[in-house]
Amino acid sequence: MKVLTKIDECRKTAEDDRKKGLTIGLVPTMGYLHEGHLSLAREAVRQCQKVFMTVFVNPAQFGPSEDLGKYPRDLKRDKVLAEKAGIDYIFCPEEGEMYGKNHLTYVYVEKLSEIMCGAHRPGHFRGVTTVVLKLFNIIVAHKAYFGRKDYQQLAVIKKMVEDLNINMEIVDCPTVREEDGLALSSRNKYLSRRERENAPVIYRVLKEAETKFISGEKEPGTIKKEALQKLRGNPYIKRIDYFDIRDAATLDEVNTARTPGNTVIATAVIIGETRLIDNVVIYKKK
Amino acid sequence: MKVLTKIDECRKTAEDDRKKGLTIGLVPTMGYLHEGHLSLAREAVRQCQKVFMTVFVNPAQFGPSEDLGKYPRDLKRDKVLAEKAGIDYIFCPEEGEMYGKNHLTYVYVEKLSEIMCGAHRPGHFRGVTTVVLKLFNIIVAHKAYFGRKDYQQLAVIKKMVEDLNINMEIVDCPTVREEDGLALSSRNKYLSRRERENAPVIYRVLKEAETKFISGEKEPGTIKKEALQKLRGNPYIKRIDYFDIRDAATLDEVNTARTPGNTVIATAVIIGETRLIDNVVIYKKK
Repeated sequence: MKVLTKIDECRKTAEDDRKKGLTIGLVPTMGYLHEGHLSLAREAVRQCQKVFMTVFVNPAQFGPSEDLGKYPRDLKRDKVLAEKAGIDYIFCPEEGEMYGKNHLTYVYVEKLSEIMCGAHRPGHFRGVTTVVLKLFNIIVAHKAYFGRKDYQQLAVIKKMVEDLNINMEIVDCPTVREEDGLALSSRNKYLSRRERENAPVIYRVLKEAETKFISGEKEPGTIKKEALQKLRGNPYIKRIDYFDIRDAATLDEVNTARTPGNTVIATAVIIGETRLIDNVVIYKKK
Repeated sequence: MKVLTKIDECRKTAEDDRKKGLTIGLVPTMGYLHEGHLSLAREAVRQCQKVFMTVFVNPAQFGPSEDLGKYPRDLKRDKVLAEKAGIDYIFCPEEGEMYGKNHLTYVYVEKLSEIMCGAHRPGHFRGVTTVVLKLFNIIVAHKAYFGRKDYQQLAVIKKMVEDLNINMEIVDCPTVREEDGLALSSRNKYLSRRERENAPVIYRVLKEAETKFISGEKEPGTIKKEALQKLRGNPYIKRIDYFDIRDAATLDEVNTARTPGNTVIATAVIIGETRLIDNVVIYKKK
């Protein structure tokens, strides 16, 4: 595995491989890799001939009061894990390499960036789309891989790719979970033992909501109300940012279980001081 | 010359030429071609092996009270002129081909989009950068050509390319003028005979300001004041949006003729009902 830190070198590497006719995959991450990232990496390695992983904790997607400073980092370990997963190139630039002193350009997906997590993390998705587009321009890949755990991020990126005519396939991969159901996240490391023991309530409540939705409970409002009650009943949950039932493609709120397309049930809760998100996607039978 | 109207066909054409190792040039226009556009086309043809011209009146860069509806169009004539200039492919998509029903993604260059024309045409540069980025993603060219007449547009696009790590060279070409100095513009067609006779005052005042600046008048404020007086003295000039002396790269206002870099003196005036822009760039001797 080759380690790249400079944009020009990274761009040239991707270009050279592309000229050889090789299929190029891209796995953007913020590092501190866990099994979720590695499942993306392995899928990319399976589908593509050369795979880039990027490790960059993107300051533009953190709010001023968020955890940019304490976001977990361990590049040495990341390199070992990435190489084991079959990654060909790891691109881990310094902040100054990615953002010039006078960076002024941002990409923004209206509406989709303003709801759910966007309503609670102003500027977050603007930061995500901007850095992802930068990475897409540096590493001109055929396919880019994102986890379904960050469902709204996935929807925002897919919309950006569509609207800006970006010639890249976005591949989404299933959420990887602990045995007790907790979705893997670099932020799980923040949880105390007691908080960690209680965190699986998130997925449990999502699954219960899914069951009710599938079994035909016509009022998403009822499902939501019950879910919120259960989450509020857990003493470790300090706040619930949202618990939403939405169209999986447009992220419009759904008003009945009889929806034309796929549905996503998504939530963000704060356990102790840690903000965790999770979701279930209900695919319409064809 | 091949006429393309569909994004996929256009993308594939550019890709195929690129795979053959050919240098690709791109000349984005809103059509109603004049000698200014054609000078860009000829420069592109001189420098590149295959040249795309795009003709698309981009609704996203017009304000609700602006001239989108009456903006001059003559695609038949454009095709003849483009072919004569040596263009290989002309891409002239319908509006629905470029913007889906639910377009939500925009690119925005802060600060540079908010001053000068941006202060008087809210959303204008956001529309420009968005459509230009879309075209860059559809036609992955080596070089793209823009006229210096739209100086702020050029600065905004260069900044976007830098900030988003877009791998394309932006080539700027000199403004083409009528014999009496008026900068060529598709909007000149709106001018009545009397307005047309008076329009060269814009360039005359710019040149006088340039002379004063070069001769060492230390107070740009003084130069600006005199220029505004002269413009206001012309009865056909209904409004002056701005007359600015700025750093040619950053577009920061300059406070003294002793500036470190190049300088641009730019103005936008309304003659009758027609908004005209023009500028002179003063290059520092090396």
